[in-house]
Amino acid sequence: MRPRSPEELRDAVEAYLGSLALTAELGELEETLRYALDSGGKRIRPVLCLAVAEAAGGSVERALPAAGAVELVHTFSLVHDDLPSLDDDAERRGRPSTHVAYGEGVALLAGDALLAEAFRLVLSYETPEPARELVGATLGMIGGQHRDITGDQADLTELHRLKTGRLFSASVGLGLWAAEVPDSEQASWRAFGDELGLLFQIVDDILDEDGIAAQVGLEAAQRLADEAAERVRERLAAVAADTMTLRELVDDLAVRTA
Amino acid sequence: MRPRSPEELRDAVEAYLGSLALTAELGELEETLRYALDSGGKRIRPVLCLAVAEAAGGSVERALPAAGAVELVHTFSLVHDDLPSLDDDAERRGRPSTHVAYGEGVALLAGDALLAEAFRLVLSYETPEPARELVGATLGMIGGQHRDITGDQADLTELHRLKTGRLFSASVGLGLWAAEVPDSEQASWRAFGDELGLLFQIVDDILDEDGIAAQVGLEAAQRLADEAAERVRERLAAVAADTMTLRELVDDLAVRTA
Repeated sequence: MRPRSPEELRDAVEAYLGSLALTAELGELEETLRYALDSGGKRIRPVLCLAVAEAAGGSVERALPAAGAVELVHTFSLVHDDLPSLDDDAERRGRPSTHVAYGEGVALLAGDALLAEAFRLVLSYETPEPARELVGATLGMIGGQHRDITGDQADLTELHRLKTGRLFSASVGLGLWAAEVPDSEQASWRAFGDELGLLFQIVDDILDEDGIAAQVGLEAAQRLADEAAERVRERLAAVAADTMTLRELVDDLAVRTA
Repeated sequence: MRPRSPEELRDAVEAYLGSLALTAELGELEETLRYALDSGGKRIRPVLCLAVAEAAGGSVERALPAAGAVELVHTFSLVHDDLPSLDDDAERRGRPSTHVAYGEGVALLAGDALLAEAFRLVLSYETPEPARELVGATLGMIGGQHRDITGDQADLTELHRLKTGRLFSASVGLGLWAAEVPDSEQASWRAFGDELGLLFQIVDDILDEDGIAAQVGLEAAQRLADEAAERVRERLAAVAADTMTLRELVDDLAVRTA
């Protein structure tokens, strides 16, 4: 069977999130979680998770809870980061931020609930490995965000590895666990995931003209991005699997303009 | 061997939390987590968890990560609830609240990290059951907090069952999982945990002169508390185990003054 394209996988993510049953005890808070999730985002992380699962010989369907969980953790981080005490962003992707739409207190609780729901989803697997993967990435991401707001940006590469890279890396790891790839066969995949996170962050900085792009200039940053994309493709070539969809995903990420 | 007293279990909890290794990637955020954890609280939930584990034939040592996780979730909820956008409490137990001591943004991230660390701890067990127990209780608790702040207090009993009872119930459940009590033998224990949560909340309302105490008056509330304590003792008597330490814990909770 032909592996699904990034677009098909994105549709699968949207369908999964759109029909996802949330915990009944959340009551009316559910509406706020749905608002935050229904963001028009690119779903890069869950698509990556599904593409890895399929390339590694697993089923896309079986990987959907893991993919959904990654997107919920990403969304939790956006809802909390947008709050006035952190980035104070009133808009996200052309819509009012969650706290502008629902109030700060409700947005705070909605972020908490998104994080807990993410763990509920990864805990639907029989083994604890997927949940352990996600919890480690979440803690690293929070550590990165703390470095970012406290001005401890001495090591920008380490900050980005934590704030962005950890969740990219976990997207790959979760795809592997969902496909039941044993620990001993994950190294080449994980090397690919780490490089991909770095590429994503460099391109992000170029688009926002901050971070590395502000440090070294746009032209030098573009060279770094090209080199990173080259390394990502090399790592992917070292993986023993049909990685056609992942190659397409890397090409999209390398030249994305939003 | 004589079962440990509530005081001995509390000492075990303090020792465990005091020496708990947090995730290195949190960096300097660790200090804020430790400030929040080092609260001088009564550690009722983790002591309950350990007492249940021991009474059910398990080892206190094996239950410590579960007990610690419950206290971390409780602490996460306090740190976030104290924030200006929720309860706006500048003090907790005679000390500046976490956000007063470290700033709102850092307190927000510290709460997030406490929740994630709690999941890391319960994921140290071989099976996913303890983590599933904690995630369900956390989601219920957040749902209860949302009802509280949005004024949806039509059903005060349901609000309390969620906001307070769910974590009490999970403290019992986690003690059972840590002691490897199979699902099929947990019902009598869980009935005890549910009643205990209710008793705790009624006494809390009497001490704070709000909630049920404000609704029915202090005298009637004290009668409700006495009836709840009686039911808790009946439930405990129905459990097939040496529950001496738990009886002592119930007696302490029924007459506590702080």
